[in-house]
Parts: sequence; C-alpha cells; structure tokens
Amino acid sequence: MSRFLSDAYASLVPYEPGEQPKKQTFIKLNTNESPFPPSQKAIEEGEKELRRLFLYPDPECTALREKIAENLGCFIRKEEILAGNGSDEILFLAFNAFKDRGFVFPDITYGFYPVYARVAGASYREIPLLPDFSVDFKRLREAKENVVLANPNAPTGIFAPLTEVEALLSERSDRLVIIDEAYVDFGGESAVSLIGKYDNLLVTRTFSKSRSLAGARLGFAVGNEELIRDLNLLKYSVNPYNVNRVTAAMGWGALADESYTKKNCAAIVKNREKLASEIAEMGYFSLPSKANFLFVRHEKASGERLYRALRNEGILVRYFDKERLRPFVRITIGDEDATAELIAALRRIREEL
Amino acid sequence: MSRFLSDAYASLVPYEPGEQPKKQTFIKLNTNESPFPPSQKAIEEGEKELRRLFLYPDPECTALREKIAENLGCFIRKEEILAGNGSDEILFLAFNAFKDRGFVFPDITYGFYPVYARVAGASYREIPLLPDFSVDFKRLREAKENVVLANPNAPTGIFAPLTEVEALLSERSDRLVIIDEAYVDFGGESAVSLIGKYDNLLVTRTFSKSRSLAGARLGFAVGNEELIRDLNLLKYSVNPYNVNRVTAAMGWGALADESYTKKNCAAIVKNREKLASEIAEMGYFSLPSKANFLFVRHEKASGERLYRALRNEGILVRYFDKERLRPFVRITIGDEDATAELIAALRRIREEL
Repeated sequence: MSRFLSDAYASLVPYEPGEQPKKQTFIKLNTNESPFPPSQKAIEEGEKELRRLFLYPDPECTALREKIAENLGCFIRKEEILAGNGSDEILFLAFNAFKDRGFVFPDITYGFYPVYARVAGASYREIPLLPDFSVDFKRLREAKENVVLANPNAPTGIFAPLTEVEALLSERSDRLVIIDEAYVDFGGESAVSLIGKYDNLLVTRTFSKSRSLAGARLGFAVGNEELIRDLNLLKYSVNPYNVNRVTAAMGWGALADESYTKKNCAAIVKNREKLASEIAEMGYFSLPSKANFLFVRHEKASGERLYRALRNEGILVRYFDKERLRPFVRITIGDEDATAELIAALRRIREEL
Repeated sequence: MSRFLSDAYASLVPYEPGEQPKKQTFIKLNTNESPFPPSQKAIEEGEKELRRLFLYPDPECTALREKIAENLGCFIRKEEILAGNGSDEILFLAFNAFKDRGFVFPDITYGFYPVYARVAGASYREIPLLPDFSVDFKRLREAKENVVLANPNAPTGIFAPLTEVEALLSERSDRLVIIDEAYVDFGGESAVSLIGKYDNLLVTRTFSKSRSLAGARLGFAVGNEELIRDLNLLKYSVNPYNVNRVTAAMGWGALADESYTKKNCAAIVKNREKLASEIAEMGYFSLPSKANFLFVRHEKASGERLYRALRNEGILVRYFDKERLRPFVRITIGDEDATAELIAALRRIREEL
C-alpha cells in the first residue's frame, strides 16, 4: 500500500471474484453466469445506442425504470425503483445510506456484505447458519440492526419462504430489511409483493443471472419511495451517470422479451434438478437449491480437491477457503451439454477420490 | 428522506448534472459532450461484445489498460493504470482511499469534489480563485492537505502550466496531488509525464470528452503502482466488475483510432477560437479556455438571463447559481454548424440584453 492510504482500509480484505480465464477453453461453471446469450431484442436495443454514446445517459434511467415497474407488477411505480451499475453498486450505496443502525447477516452468505460494511464504516454482526445451512431466522428476527438477507442464499442456494421474510419485516418496523434477490428467478418467490405493505423493505435484483447480462452490469433496487430517494441522494453524490446508455437499452430490451428469460430459467431449473438427482446416486451430496448453482460435496474429498479434479477435466467450479464451506464446491448450472459433461466428469473423478 | 438514512448524509447536497432533454430538439451545448459520434473502430469493437454479455467482464480490464499504457507513452505500465466507470467513480474511490490528510481544492472547480469529500467523510478546504479566475497556486503549495486540481479547470477552462503542477508535487512529497485531466486533450499538457518522477501524483482522465464516449462511462487513473494498488483495494471491495465488456472494448477501439480523436480535438479547438474571437467583437467576454467549453459573460446580463435567451433560440447552455459564477454561462464547443448557429444566436440576443 502507499503511504497515502487511509488507516480505515489498511486491513481491508476485499471480496475475491471468481477466476476469469482469459482463454475460453474451460466449461465455465464458476461465476454463476447464464449459459445463454442475451436476448436478441436486448442486443438490437444495445446496438442502436452504440452510435449515440457521445451523449451522456439519462441519469434517471426513466425508460428502463418504467419497464421494470411494468415487469414487476405488484403496483410498483418507477419512483420505487433505482437502477445501478450491477446490484453490487446498489448494495454498496445501501450499506452507506443506512449505516447508522449497523447490519446483521448470516455468517455464510454473499462475501461482499462484510466488505461493504467495512468500507461504509458501518458496524456489522454475523449470525451463524443452522447445522443444515439454513438461515437462523429466530436470531435474525431478534436483531436490532438492519438485516441483509440473500434469498436464495449464496453459496448454499437455499431459499427461505416469504413468511420468514415477512416476519423479519413485521417484528421490528424500526429497522430496514434488505433482501438480495440475485438468484430469485430460478424457483424462488420475490419479496417485491411485500413492498406495498412494508416501508422498511428494500429488494435488490440483477440482470446478471437470469437475463444473461453479467457483462453489461445492471441491477436495481425496489422499495418505498423514500428509501429510493435516499439511495438517489448518494447516487447523485457519487456517480449520477452510473448506468451507461447501451446497458440501460439492453435491460429494456431484455424485459421486452420476457418469454426468452422464462424459457432459459426453466432450462436451468431442469438441468439443476437433473444434476442433483444424478449425482446423488453417485454418492455426492448437495444442498436443496433454488438458484442457478448447486453446492456440492463428497465425503471423501475437500472442496479444493473436487475443484482441482474438475479443473483437470476442463471444468471450472468454485471452492471457498472458509470454515464449514471447505467440503463444498459451488457449481453453476450450465446448458444441457455442459450439464451432461459435468455429470460424466463427476462420475469419472469419483473413482479417484 | 426515510427514517433509515444515516445522519452523515442528512444535509448532503449532491452535484447537479446538466439538463438532459428527453427530446433532441435543442442544440445541446450544456454538458461538455463531444459533438462527434464515437470512432467507427470503437463501435465495431463494442458490437462484437454485445453477444458475449452473458459473461462477466475482465475485472482487471487488462487489454484496455495495456492499450492505454501504449497510448500514453511516458514509459507508463499497465500496473500504473486503473480503469473505472467514468472518472467520477475513480475520483470518488480516491477521495475515500486517501482521506486521512483531508483535501484542498479551488473554491470554483468541478462541483463534485466537495460532495465526494463529504460522502467519504474527509475534511476539505476551498481556496478562492484569484480575481482573474486563475488558481491561487501559492496557497495550494502551502497546504498540508492532499491537493485536487482540475487542469484545465472547470467551469473556467483555464489551464495552468505544468511547472505549477510540478511545484505542487515537489513542495511537499508527503501529500498527494490529484490532477483531474478530463479536459486536457483540447490544448492542455498532461501531467502524466511527471509520474515517473513523483510517487505522490495521481492523474485522472476520461473517455467522455475527446473520445466521444460520455454515454459509455469510462475513465482511468494513472499513477505510481502503489497508489493504483490502493485504489484497486477499494474497487475490489465495492464493485470489481465496474467497467462493462462493451465499454472496455469501445475504449480499446477508440484508442486504436487515435487519428479520429486528434482530428476531432483539432476541430473543437478551431471552433472554440473562432467563437471566442467573434463574440469578443460583439462585446461578450470569455475566459481563456483550453477545454471543450467557453465560460462567457456579457456585462448587461446575468448568466441565467443569457441561458434563458439562448434557450429561446433553441440552444442549451449552462449557468451556475454560485457567487462569482452568476454572470457567466458555460458553453460547450460544438461542431462547425452548431458554432455558427451559436454565434448567430449570440448576435441576435445581444440586441435585447
């Protein structure tokens, strides 16, 4: 570090994003991307904007937010929506805007939450997952801090029913509940339906997974108009033009082609269930997932060993060097071919474990 | 605001970006965009990435940074470069990373600096410009805080010679000097040449102005490898995938077509000089600009009145409701046609001032 770096960040350990191989020779099942290209409609809308990029984008992303509202239903209005440079950016803004109460979240969840809290200068507390890797809702309900919950959770893939989310909201209306729904489109149920009822609910979503736009960077938050206004206050103080013209147009296009998203999500769910049942027969264990990934272990090998064995087979997955996660690998669900190759590889490597 | 908003932001006044008319019926000379479309090479490179957007971008932006290094010369290596979602994002990261010493900058400059400082929780001090609107380098040299200097400055357009920048650097090596060179390509001289000599220098640049990519959001910082590592620590803690695939590819393409940028910059400089000399003959006064805008006043009218008169003529410019700036409008330099129309409009409205 330089002699100028703030002491506040001297011991900061950033989240480590998954490996991005420079050459695309691996079957890439390590960063929870979609195996399907963006919708043709999204590509067409993006193409139209390329020549207009000499102009700044609309900082309000008005057309996109109107389309998101229409897509969400639930009487959501565009004033209840904020678009951002990935849901990562929006979550970071939220950790800043609402930092005074501190935050509480599971000890096993999206690795960015503790980092966001640290950079925002917010206090935080981690609540251990229960032995079956489900969220300890009893302890979360009792917490005085703002709650942050990925639902489905990562990297477990486990989805908690909305009744649990609603209990968090109603238990204490003086704290904020942030539900990170990055993976909700693969069998979960969105808390957006609760926004009209609770002004202490903020839901974040992304176009990176079900809408095949990880490389475009687009996410959004939905919540009470006042919460969105707070987030906008920070957005306009930091980077008003956070979403670029091509990205906003592609997001609009993706939403205008909802049948494509539905078809892709259905394929992912089908491949996930096939993978789960086939590898169970081979002696692997996986957590019940409602996400586009499966958290898998084998009693004879560590996650790192599984990772290396699959890498030798030309398949990239992800392992985590963290207590309780070491036995597992997180495997992104690919298309039908990738799933078949993965199943074959898991069958082969099982012999050597 | 909601009851959840942090007290730290209760009185925050965000920077206000220029008006973005929804319909393109105005001649838009209000946000310092380029009047020229992006380079054809940039568009082609961007197009190629649209279908690959289901994959996350390279968080290191390796190819882009290599191209920037090659383009900058001065023996700059890619390890001395950080790419970001506009130079706005990079400046915000810098205000966070290097906040402990506090910051000092002119009282009239890019309106984001005080806002960044406030959000980062950094102290700051503003040094008044001298009566001729030039920077008070004597007082800046004496300051103990990190210095932030837009060069050319905004909204004045005045460029300070590199000897003044170098004196800031050498006067106190224990503080950082950040030079924001958003407008350097229109007649200024870059401080990048000083980076090998001073490890307390950080230079920020943007693709929004001379490279016609305001809507793509791309900026970068150049500085000593340790400073870049500090900024990366924060980037990887906040939003590792900050630059999307299309944008990184278009930035690369723009740099591969340097003759187009040079031609456009020369046209802007020519139109700026023509505008300055013609309106001087009509009794307008403008500050000597090395940027892609001119800061203009007329003794008979306020900036707001000039703004309104030009708006009636179908031309959007910008005025500022701030002490010392009220007599002025900031006029972005357009292409030859826009410049001719602007000159004609300034001639017409002069009669009614």
